[in-house]
Amino acid sequence: MAPAKGETGNMNKVRIGSVGLGRLGLRHAENIASRMRNAELLALCDVDKSKLDQTADRLGVKHRFTTFEELIACKDIDAVVLVSPSALHTRQIAAALDAGKHVFSEKPLGVNVAECKEAEKAVEAHGDLVFMLGFMRRFDESYRYAHDKVASGVIGKPVLFRSYSQDPEKFIAGAIAFAPHSGGEFLDMAVHDIDLARWFTGSEPETVYAIGGCYAHQEFAACQDGDNVSCLMKFKNDAMVFLFAGRTAPHGYNVETEIIGTKGILRIASVPQKNLVEVLDQYGVRKECSENFLERFDTAYVNEVQEFVNCIVEGRKPEVTVYDGTRVSEIAYTCKAAFEQGTLLKFS
Amino acid sequence: MAPAKGETGNMNKVRIGSVGLGRLGLRHAENIASRMRNAELLALCDVDKSKLDQTADRLGVKHRFTTFEELIACKDIDAVVLVSPSALHTRQIAAALDAGKHVFSEKPLGVNVAECKEAEKAVEAHGDLVFMLGFMRRFDESYRYAHDKVASGVIGKPVLFRSYSQDPEKFIAGAIAFAPHSGGEFLDMAVHDIDLARWFTGSEPETVYAIGGCYAHQEFAACQDGDNVSCLMKFKNDAMVFLFAGRTAPHGYNVETEIIGTKGILRIASVPQKNLVEVLDQYGVRKECSENFLERFDTAYVNEVQEFVNCIVEGRKPEVTVYDGTRVSEIAYTCKAAFEQGTLLKFS
Amino acid sequence: MAPAKGETGNMNKVRIGSVGLGRLGLRHAENIASRMRNAELLALCDVDKSKLDQTADRLGVKHRFTTFEELIACKDIDAVVLVSPSALHTRQIAAALDAGKHVFSEKPLGVNVAECKEAEKAVEAHGDLVFMLGFMRRFDESYRYAHDKVASGVIGKPVLFRSYSQDPEKFIAGAIAFAPHSGGEFLDMAVHDIDLARWFTGSEPETVYAIGGCYAHQEFAACQDGDNVSCLMKFKNDAMVFLFAGRTAPHGYNVETEIIGTKGILRIASVPQKNLVEVLDQYGVRKECSENFLERFDTAYVNEVQEFVNCIVEGRKPEVTVYDGTRVSEIAYTCKAAFEQGTLLKFS
Amino acid sequence: MAPAKGETGNMNKVRIGSVGLGRLGLRHAENIASRMRNAELLALCDVDKSKLDQTADRLGVKHRFTTFEELIACKDIDAVVLVSPSALHTRQIAAALDAGKHVFSEKPLGVNVAECKEAEKAVEAHGDLVFMLGFMRRFDESYRYAHDKVASGVIGKPVLFRSYSQDPEKFIAGAIAFAPHSGGEFLDMAVHDIDLARWFTGSEPETVYAIGGCYAHQEFAACQDGDNVSCLMKFKNDAMVFLFAGRTAPHGYNVETEIIGTKGILRIASVPQKNLVEVLDQYGVRKECSENFLERFDTAYVNEVQEFVNCIVEGRKPEVTVYDGTRVSEIAYTCKAAFEQGTLLKFS
Repeated sequence: MAPAKGETGNMNKVRIGSVGLGRLGLRHAENIASRMRNAELLALCDVDKSKLDQTADRLGVKHRFTTFEELIACKDIDAVVLVSPSALHTRQIAAALDAGKHVFSEKPLGVNVAECKEAEKAVEAHGDLVFMLGFMRRFDESYRYAHDKVASGVIGKPVLFRSYSQDPEKFIAGAIAFAPHSGGEFLDMAVHDIDLARWFTGSEPETVYAIGGCYAHQEFAACQDGDNVSCLMKFKNDAMVFLFAGRTAPHGYNVETEIIGTKGILRIASVPQKNLVEVLDQYGVRKECSENFLERFDTAYVNEVQEFVNCIVEGRKPEVTVYDGTRVSEIAYTCKAAFEQGTLLKFS
Repeated sequence: MAPAKGETGNMNKVRIGSVGLGRLGLRHAENIASRMRNAELLALCDVDKSKLDQTADRLGVKHRFTTFEELIACKDIDAVVLVSPSALHTRQIAAALDAGKHVFSEKPLGVNVAECKEAEKAVEAHGDLVFMLGFMRRFDESYRYAHDKVASGVIGKPVLFRSYSQDPEKFIAGAIAFAPHSGGEFLDMAVHDIDLARWFTGSEPETVYAIGGCYAHQEFAACQDGDNVSCLMKFKNDAMVFLFAGRTAPHGYNVETEIIGTKGILRIASVPQKNLVEVLDQYGVRKECSENFLERFDTAYVNEVQEFVNCIVEGRKPEVTVYDGTRVSEIAYTCKAAFEQGTLLKFS
Repeated sequence: MAPAKGETGNMNKVRIGSVGLGRLGLRHAENIASRMRNAELLALCDVDKSKLDQTADRLGVKHRFTTFEELIACKDIDAVVLVSPSALHTRQIAAALDAGKHVFSEKPLGVNVAECKEAEKAVEAHGDLVFMLGFMRRFDESYRYAHDKVASGVIGKPVLFRSYSQDPEKFIAGAIAFAPHSGGEFLDMAVHDIDLARWFTGSEPETVYAIGGCYAHQEFAACQDGDNVSCLMKFKNDAMVFLFAGRTAPHGYNVETEIIGTKGILRIASVPQKNLVEVLDQYGVRKECSENFLERFDTAYVNEVQEFVNCIVEGRKPEVTVYDGTRVSEIAYTCKAAFEQGTLLKFS
Repeated sequence: MAPAKGETGNMNKVRIGSVGLGRLGLRHAENIASRMRNAELLALCDVDKSKLDQTADRLGVKHRFTTFEELIACKDIDAVVLVSPSALHTRQIAAALDAGKHVFSEKPLGVNVAECKEAEKAVEAHGDLVFMLGFMRRFDESYRYAHDKVASGVIGKPVLFRSYSQDPEKFIAGAIAFAPHSGGEFLDMAVHDIDLARWFTGSEPETVYAIGGCYAHQEFAACQDGDNVSCLMKFKNDAMVFLFAGRTAPHGYNVETEIIGTKGILRIASVPQKNLVEVLDQYGVRKECSENFLERFDTAYVNEVQEFVNCIVEGRKPEVTVYDGTRVSEIAYTCKAAFEQGTLLKFS
């Protein structure tokens, strides 16, 4: 990376094409454009021509494409960031790798385990390219700080891992509309907690019992889903893992985790505070809460793509592998099955 | 209770004989002696003559007995408070009721379900007398405040009830010594959380899956117990109930509960703070924690016996019945069986 | 105090007559009747005959008097608790001591420094009797815990002592009505903070600058007072002392203190939480607050009178002396003068 | 800013030259290089050639200069960011403006009021250029959120503004070494709190009383300074303002502010938590704290320079003016004088 003395250019910047301009896609595009080291947002791709032009103009992006095929055919691009609909992930991952592009994909790897296995093959076929899956929580500074502590042994052996993912009630209309395509709460929401459970405990689940229901919104029942669900898993290293996912949080977007060890306990974000302001008024002493994932994980979304860029620049592979993506999906599907069947299931 | 105008005496005070002078027994004796309305500590009973005399002298108690039989034969006594070893509870409850005394007993009702059923019969045979079981958490001002809110409907329908009971690691030697007699963590510790779960959700468990193990202290394995255990139950009203009991808390005596409803969430004592002092030093900004149940539930222990006294004075029965005592034991035994068998169990 | 073996009576109980049945007087009466060791509520005194009878009946009190003179003439009484209007304190303290009674008086010692000096003389004339002034905060378990830490040296040398006394806005009508008789916020409210400042720093003020005003309620201006005031004092040991008193707290009854030392910092009740319940709802994550002094200092009011009783029983004198009462009043008057004159004043 | 359709370049980016590579200078350089929209780090300037080359290489910076004169002579540069020693600020501000560059300068404007007035003249002489002073706290998201609330009137009229600036004890050696050049705690530290006080209350000070001393480190006495100081000011709108600055914080870098209004209270960062992790261990339940200003104000330092860039791009002037810089210095000097003289001072 050392440029010529006295003068330097943009030669070493990773040139990125970003796909999809939904809420998160737009955020990734903005982040790449202005909050990243050694990266350049060179192309955008979205089917909505008007949104595409507007965003590309605003962010000063050179190339703009309405089809994915055009994007990956573009010679100027080194890497692709996929923030497209889940059903397209597997195919786009493979196609981009085949076109010689490094690939960062938002989760999931695929909409079923068979697709995940296809993605594995595509990644295996291109060992020279960087592939990374977007488990952004691992890049949140609080989760990372906690993980460092756990890894250093200060809390001893993991006893109980508890993790909640809750969406605010105020987004329920969207959640109901998306329900048939979401795969259910275990796949749509708890998948991040499953990733954290494996990351923090360093182990794999053996058994799972899952329950839940439609406590406020019967609409989810039609999709064999609930508006709030939970599961208790025993992991191979004996760690107990309790996960809860809900769509009716009254206070905001709540992602919290507790790791109880034999020598110490860590809690991450047990109050999902918006910022450092405390309000004292007729409601008492209170912290206002994060509204959504973009607010809560603002920096994490920057950090994860920065890590992708760093891996490309430094010629190394990310900590999270394609196999982690498959494994997390497998676990989420088993949780979903346990929930639907009302039984205790064992993991293979 | 209205005494003659201008002059009044102690005629209406409930005269209590308290049995057992262990840590909690001593506390109950002190509370009755000086922190109770309409009650008088008239007698003490303990097998340890020296401790008995010392305590009776200190508290100014008139009668002192080294056998339970002498105590219940004493005509001056209206009511008996049992803080004796668990194995004696059923028999002493029956004998005291037969002797015409009102009875307050610390939990459990008996050391197995059969004993609980015997206690039920004794209570049924003396419908004119007050019988009350010591579920002190229901008399803690924070739990009571939360229960009032739940009952008033402000948090909507219960979705998830989560409750932890953790003893400090520093008491582990005592826990190990007592393990063979404790009945295991579900009976010894989670029984209070089971009571709370029924109280807060107003429902009964249908299924339970329980796990755990010996994470730090293998000694519990010999008693088919763990040093940390948990269970996930589905209740008849669909409420999810997650309970955790542990003996290795690094920070102190921790009893916390969370009730997630469709419209609001309540957390009770998620920081088991000793008092209102916050310390800012090289360890950060911190709250020091409660050391044990006597510190945490100091006022609750007063309130529960006060309620017993009030019931006698006002001629009414306590909210908690003998059947609650049996039911909680049955549930704890089923949790224990699920834990020992590693299976999902259904409640009858 | 050791009673005869096998039998004991009430001979050693301190027999108390309590004067005044306002809100705090009523509370003291109830506390003495049922929450105190070695004490007996033997008499009540209030000008309101109906309230007197009602309370005496309810609490089972033997003697009831409508004049203070009758009360102190009563031979059965060992000690008097004064919760009468401030203007009567000095005279009643002296009269009760002259009648051979131990005296506990709520603050203030007198309504001006001359009266305080008179009280001093009365106390000096009866060195065999216990006299105690009600600085209840010193008996709050959190303040006491903090004071023990400071005394043990763990926070080093005191640098800044900051203390707030805030009454809720919802009591403003009462505060306005009482304003002409309150002596102003420094005397009525900050007096407790002044006591704490001396207690925690172990030093005396040298200078004071005081400001404030009528931010919401102009009515206080007529009494040369404000609805919110503050002062900065330099103490002889160099400690900085900042006090704030307000009558418009939006969140509840707020009494908080911070002691910044060279090696550590302590904060007492910086969140005036009502209990251990945390509410998560549309307002965020919040703690509801104490409503008034009776709620916040519930236990402290018991403890202070218990200490008075203990002093009588054990034949010793309280830590707080009559001279502390005078000194605190002198300081409060100087703060008031600095506020009224808008100048920096030095303490003599 | 709309680039040509289908293709865009870097034409509209503000080309910045940054001066000074101390800790904060380095951070600003990194931020401009990779965390800023519409900005480009085109040049660096530092007397240390080795550090200059190393940093310029690492960040891919085109131009590098060891003298300020060379930098401002560079035609490629639109704007200068000054993070040089305080004593150079006034002269460099004027020279850069004279060279036609927009100027962002870290505080202070000058090392005395006369220098501030010179800076004012330089800014006035170049009304076409953007000048901005680095009051980064105004760009912290928590302070900004609180300010929006205050501005919207939800807390009513400001009653008390309290603000603390505390450096950790562990940096005391550096503070002692820098003491002769720091101007004292009011100028070096409280200057930010003074800016906040004016910003939040929308008013100006009338009087000030200031105290403090050397509680742990006598070295500051030689500079007529203390290791901990405070002042109480009355503002023209009657707001009470209490500021505290200290160099011996045991827990970390602490910057906290409280604004008590007639209808609500806001507290910003009363716990200077490092992140969202809570640790439960033998020390209780605790939050670890920020280590220094770079950690606490990480995002604020990005935001303030981004605002400078936005002003240039959008052709508007920053909210903070050069006159604010002068005014804050004048106030800090008056606080310092009040502290040194031990008297109450009035502001002109």
